[in-house]
Amino acid sequence: MSDTNPESLPSPTTIGIDFGGTSVKVGVVRGADVISEIERIPTQKYDGAEALTDAIVATVHSLKESHPAISAIGIGVPGAVDFEKGMTYNLTNVPGWSNMPLRDIMAEKSGLPTVLENDANCAAYAEFKRGAGQGFRNVVVVTLGTGVGGGLILNGELYRGSQYAAGEIGQMSVDFDGVEGPYGNWGALERYIGNQQITEIGVKRFLEAGREVTAENCSPESLAQAAYAGDEIAHQVWHLVAKYLATAMTSVVYLLNPDAIVIGGGVAHAGNVLFDPLKEHMSSMLSSEFFETLNIVHARFGNTAGIIGSAALAAELVEA
Amino acid sequence: MSDTNPESLPSPTTIGIDFGGTSVKVGVVRGADVISEIERIPTQKYDGAEALTDAIVATVHSLKESHPAISAIGIGVPGAVDFEKGMTYNLTNVPGWSNMPLRDIMAEKSGLPTVLENDANCAAYAEFKRGAGQGFRNVVVVTLGTGVGGGLILNGELYRGSQYAAGEIGQMSVDFDGVEGPYGNWGALERYIGNQQITEIGVKRFLEAGREVTAENCSPESLAQAAYAGDEIAHQVWHLVAKYLATAMTSVVYLLNPDAIVIGGGVAHAGNVLFDPLKEHMSSMLSSEFFETLNIVHARFGNTAGIIGSAALAAELVEA
Repeated sequence: MSDTNPESLPSPTTIGIDFGGTSVKVGVVRGADVISEIERIPTQKYDGAEALTDAIVATVHSLKESHPAISAIGIGVPGAVDFEKGMTYNLTNVPGWSNMPLRDIMAEKSGLPTVLENDANCAAYAEFKRGAGQGFRNVVVVTLGTGVGGGLILNGELYRGSQYAAGEIGQMSVDFDGVEGPYGNWGALERYIGNQQITEIGVKRFLEAGREVTAENCSPESLAQAAYAGDEIAHQVWHLVAKYLATAMTSVVYLLNPDAIVIGGGVAHAGNVLFDPLKEHMSSMLSSEFFETLNIVHARFGNTAGIIGSAALAAELVEA
Repeated sequence: MSDTNPESLPSPTTIGIDFGGTSVKVGVVRGADVISEIERIPTQKYDGAEALTDAIVATVHSLKESHPAISAIGIGVPGAVDFEKGMTYNLTNVPGWSNMPLRDIMAEKSGLPTVLENDANCAAYAEFKRGAGQGFRNVVVVTLGTGVGGGLILNGELYRGSQYAAGEIGQMSVDFDGVEGPYGNWGALERYIGNQQITEIGVKRFLEAGREVTAENCSPESLAQAAYAGDEIAHQVWHLVAKYLATAMTSVVYLLNPDAIVIGGGVAHAGNVLFDPLKEHMSSMLSSEFFETLNIVHARFGNTAGIIGSAALAAELVEA
């Protein structure tokens, strides 16, 4: 150990790039902060991969003029990424992006060291390095939204798996005889607690209780508001959602014995009406050895997680 | 890379020690082979920890006389182990063994470098280093017996978890509304496919089919023989056992994306009548990205896994 605490050094200024469904978001990041306006490049506007990467590089150059300290680029993309080779396998939302050496293309065009990573891994890394998972060694990050995603930090490093595909928490089974997931995987967690499924549970429960309700009043957001207002049925919905989530998370904890579970995504905005029954269920399912030291916490970052995480990975290129 | 392939060097000769339910087993190991008679020291015969460690050390000294090349000791014990400190937390089957610095006691008394590890981790490491998991980077080892245990090798190293408690595959849930496990954990895998539960499934299925049967004819071994003899009911039992196991293993694969699952323990002796439906179920639940490169294999070692694995860990003390 040296006398210099690396935590006290200023973080490098890097660029985080997040390939989203309709646009590529680009931001300048220092530590946990996006210090520029986030630029949005609409993917549909550009015909093919080359035109789009050129547009991204133009944005990078323009950001570098206003932030000359920028020293590296991190890119998060949906789908599997060969981290070692810096290749995308397929970008489902951008046609013609199969097997593209995106890392090297960007590095060459921008003149900056570049790292390429899967977007869920970037979001997980943001929480580990800059957010709610800081200071822990083994962290499981879960994102609850339309689907359920995740990322793992094990022994202080992003764990990617043999085909760079680890962390698919939404495909884990909570019922050997349950609803089929997208790959024929019975009991797939995301078919129980995805956005739409939570709404369906809400509609069903309210109708069963003889109360008029539509899908619109049963969004996760509305169900959370109703629960905070004291609605018993809404609480029951969250209790059931928490039970499904607790089942999968308990399996993860018995398998990996992590220090922390960080839960983010739109559904996690429900806050304590979800977290309280989740902790209660997990406490009743885990032996003390696993539960006593386990932290179950809300994610720090929302939509910026991908940008901050990819920028944090980029920072390591120049800190190392 | 050097020109010398470390795999071609002779393995060091080390001692593996396995703390079992009624005896401590001690063997001299080179590579994948136990090259001595396995000495069995009955735990009940010794009053207290000191008398037992003295007996083990006496055995070590005597083995060292016949095998002077012995250069290190590996010890596997049931229950959690603080690997860094070399402490046992509690040895459930040996009274008075809480918080004992067993590694340092043995190292001091024997004069040999010593490593202490949990027994399930030793068995997993044996398969990774010397057995069916050799050559893979991410390996999940499952042991099917009275209970269901496991161990993980991730990125080429034993993964222990934050409290050294990782790998409890038997406590993972296969049903959010299922049978309770030992910690109140609903759907605990080992309550579905432990030895006794397999027998119960067998008895129930045969009785339902109007066939006279006792628990004695429905041991996993008998059910395997019946299946190989073409008994349709026995096949159905294994198909169901495989479904429960596939559910948990699929969750593990979506989470960790391993190269290999190594399955051992008494129940795994059933062989293809278990492995065939297991692979079939997993193939139908996993996306091709996860399944195509996945190896599902039978463990190489049986009762000697603990000795060989602890000895392999000991070998690394002197190879490093």
